[in-house]
Amino acid sequence: MRGVVMHGPGDVRVEDREDPKIEAPTDAVIRVTAACVCGSDLWPYRGQEPAEGLLMGHEYVGVVEEVGAEVTTLKPGDFVVGSFVISDNTCEICQAGYQSRCVHAEFVHGGIGTQAEKARIPLADGTLVVVPGEPTEEQAKSLLAASDVLGTGWFAAVAAEAGPGKTVAVVGEGAVGLLGVLAARRLGAERVIAMSRHADRQALARKFGATDIVEERGDAGVERIKELTGGLGAHSVIEAVGTQESMNQAIRATRPGGHVGYVGVSHDVSLDGLELFFSGIHLHGGPAPVRRFLPDLVELIMSDQINPGEVFDLTLPLESAAEAYAAMDKRQATKVLLTTGA
Amino acid sequence: MRGVVMHGPGDVRVEDREDPKIEAPTDAVIRVTAACVCGSDLWPYRGQEPAEGLLMGHEYVGVVEEVGAEVTTLKPGDFVVGSFVISDNTCEICQAGYQSRCVHAEFVHGGIGTQAEKARIPLADGTLVVVPGEPTEEQAKSLLAASDVLGTGWFAAVAAEAGPGKTVAVVGEGAVGLLGVLAARRLGAERVIAMSRHADRQALARKFGATDIVEERGDAGVERIKELTGGLGAHSVIEAVGTQESMNQAIRATRPGGHVGYVGVSHDVSLDGLELFFSGIHLHGGPAPVRRFLPDLVELIMSDQINPGEVFDLTLPLESAAEAYAAMDKRQATKVLLTTGA
Repeated sequence: MRGVVMHGPGDVRVEDREDPKIEAPTDAVIRVTAACVCGSDLWPYRGQEPAEGLLMGHEYVGVVEEVGAEVTTLKPGDFVVGSFVISDNTCEICQAGYQSRCVHAEFVHGGIGTQAEKARIPLADGTLVVVPGEPTEEQAKSLLAASDVLGTGWFAAVAAEAGPGKTVAVVGEGAVGLLGVLAARRLGAERVIAMSRHADRQALARKFGATDIVEERGDAGVERIKELTGGLGAHSVIEAVGTQESMNQAIRATRPGGHVGYVGVSHDVSLDGLELFFSGIHLHGGPAPVRRFLPDLVELIMSDQINPGEVFDLTLPLESAAEAYAAMDKRQATKVLLTTGA
Repeated sequence: MRGVVMHGPGDVRVEDREDPKIEAPTDAVIRVTAACVCGSDLWPYRGQEPAEGLLMGHEYVGVVEEVGAEVTTLKPGDFVVGSFVISDNTCEICQAGYQSRCVHAEFVHGGIGTQAEKARIPLADGTLVVVPGEPTEEQAKSLLAASDVLGTGWFAAVAAEAGPGKTVAVVGEGAVGLLGVLAARRLGAERVIAMSRHADRQALARKFGATDIVEERGDAGVERIKELTGGLGAHSVIEAVGTQESMNQAIRATRPGGHVGYVGVSHDVSLDGLELFFSGIHLHGGPAPVRRFLPDLVELIMSDQINPGEVFDLTLPLESAAEAYAAMDKRQATKVLLTTGA
């Protein structure tokens, strides 16, 4: 089969790889019908993370081809979506809703790789969710978004305690930030302030439910959020970037007692203890336990209540993966969908 | 009147000061019947914070002497307890339960100072809580504890989401940590692990409801907490020290999805963004909004359901304040009560 391998910064190739096989009785092999490139794939692409010999891709929808002897909830032919972390969904941590930190957690990124025609998914019963019925093309795109960027934006909104009566600010205008806007609104937030300076992303943020746009960044962005909230700061702030500046911006834009939900993978971030102490905020985040939300997200998508697939603004065949990475790196695309032809 | 002034590290003096007067119509002047020395008073005493010309003391119980024209909930003769932060208790931040970050917040430490015979308390209606009836000597000690160390330990336990079914670990064996143990148990925690290596403090922790004692610190302490919790870490950890080591210990001893409630004033603490990200914990803390809890704490104390005054293991007259500081600095006392003779 064909699959994407990163050999070093900027060096993305589509190569022949051996077809995955069932290795453990809890495995499934799926035919990936669509995959995509994640904002987090750009960290190694830009040389900000190790980038040697990575099997790329951790977002996926597909059709089950084969299951191991112990798999009970899936059968060949099922249309499935899974998260970017393998989880048993039964351990105490999973049961508490933190499947991304399952005691048997394994990242799909790097060692499995779903920017490929097929993938072996370990702990398939725990990791994969069966989609009822046959998704339309639009629904399939949205299910693919659910696999990470929607699930992550949703977690960020939940971690930030977005809800009725709340003003939510969103730092980050990538797919996760934009879908954080969608999630905050679906969770009932009264006001959602998207921090964005690009017209196309502002437009999508508005479509997903943003009530206000703030173009300023850093301290000026914080001041603007305070102006919009009676000097107090937002109740809830979603952080979806992962830099020192974005974390500072999120923490400082939150009122005392408010909540920051942060999901941007931290890169060279250091938080000053005393500033955090006197901020009086709640801080929660990390790799999103997307699996917690997947059943609900699948239902919202299959009943056409949400359309997160709109974040995909470029579709390319798997063979053009290098072009897909370059487009996202240059911000020519927000999110690229890769079709496998399957 | 007499009052404690710090003139520099280690230099604590009891001096004549002008009697406080009503300055604003929302002020009250109270006769301080008892005050005490706080672990946080040791930071300037040890030269780890500016220490020049501070009016010391921020914990207090007393009797109202005089009220300003706009004070409606207090009258001369009322026995009152207040928090270490002045708050109006009506602004949006106060109403959300974060009185320590009131839009009109002012610290009692430094500029007011309750290690004194009298004190002017601004925003008296918002800051002070009237104690029903006449407290016994034991109850008065406990009410004094409620003013900060109990209220702070209670907030830490609430921030750490201590509750039924939870295992709570407590980092810090000062008065706040010990009362965090008491709070965690009162909030219903199943298991409370006190991290302490001093026999007298271990004994008090047990008395306050600790079910386990861990003597190890740092990484060894973290490993011990994991051993006691099936390898997962505690659900909830109270951090009541404020150093880099104690914060690391708290964060690392918490299971993914668990909660750290931190109330030790941060000193030279820096949190690594990536470690925090992958920890998957909730982090909440800061200067405790003691005023939120005071009405309930007063009720628990006046009905003899809790006896937090047991943290006081040394009582000295106000005139011996220098001795009181020295005893706490040398860990000869956990918490010193200062009597004014009033």
